[in-house]
Amino acid sequence: MDWTFRPIGTIRSPFVKQEGTPIQPCFAHDARGEIILDETFAPALKDLEGFERIWVLHVLDRSTSWEPLVKPYLDDVKRGVFAVRSPARPNPIGLSCLRLVGIEGSILFVAELDILDGTPVLDIKPYVPRFDCYPNVRAGWLDQTNSRAFKADGRFEKKPGNGEDG
Amino acid sequence: MDWTFRPIGTIRSPFVKQEGTPIQPCFAHDARGEIILDETFAPALKDLEGFERIWVLHVLDRSTSWEPLVKPYLDDVKRGVFAVRSPARPNPIGLSCLRLVGIEGSILFVAELDILDGTPVLDIKPYVPRFDCYPNVRAGWLDQTNSRAFKADGRFEKKPGNGEDG
Repeated sequence: MDWTFRPIGTIRSPFVKQEGTPIQPCFAHDARGEIILDETFAPALKDLEGFERIWVLHVLDRSTSWEPLVKPYLDDVKRGVFAVRSPARPNPIGLSCLRLVGIEGSILFVAELDILDGTPVLDIKPYVPRFDCYPNVRAGWLDQTNSRAFKADGRFEKKPGNGEDG
Repeated sequence: MDWTFRPIGTIRSPFVKQEGTPIQPCFAHDARGEIILDETFAPALKDLEGFERIWVLHVLDRSTSWEPLVKPYLDDVKRGVFAVRSPARPNPIGLSCLRLVGIEGSILFVAELDILDGTPVLDIKPYVPRFDCYPNVRAGWLDQTNSRAFKADGRFEKKPGNGEDG
């Protein structure tokens, strides 16, 4: 059974293509932007400003189709797609922990942004250290990598003219 | 524009209704279960076993319809729905950081499970402390609460016979 979701808003970002975009919020300290929610959602943002960070669930709408094994940005070896955070996934839903700078009406001002301009937003949740922070857990191949490729290239991006561009 | 996603698998859990289910993995140390993926996804699990924890994105398929303000499990005051982690949301997508115990074929054995039996799974991502762990950030109203209501009641659950049960 398929599940259909309607975006609650859109990302406004300085990044318009994957190449050059930070691959995670922790590599994007200077990047600022906004989450423009539909105005009907403004009341649902009550109490959110007390949180320093938010989870943003978004549609990775410019990603190529997925494959079981992919070469991630931070490694030279093909890894299982569920063991990487790359955007080309069976269900292309992105998860970013952004810093919340402020809220005005239905607009959220955010920093440490790693999301492309125009990206549809599905959900916003508060970041809660008690629920979300596990500082010393093993992180598989990512514990071994020394890569410093903290910005994306275009490997997971749909190319204009190849029939995948939408 | 709506987005449609097809689940990659299903949760097998000891919890069959919201009432009594742990409200977050950190309150569910003893709860074990499985994620039964479609067999076609087995190759995409390569390298995941090196990770101690995984993010599971799932459909909160038994939740009531959403409202802008809700009374969360851990407080007696109505809060904006985007400032709580309750299941009744505009797009009912759940985010759980489970402990990965093992993998056999396309079955993942997990602990610290806070998800209902039969829940559709949309995505699995590795938990990476460098990306996901922010230990000392402010957490708004949740920094003030002293509630110890670590298990759900039925407040966000569809009731049989009221036309919402599905």
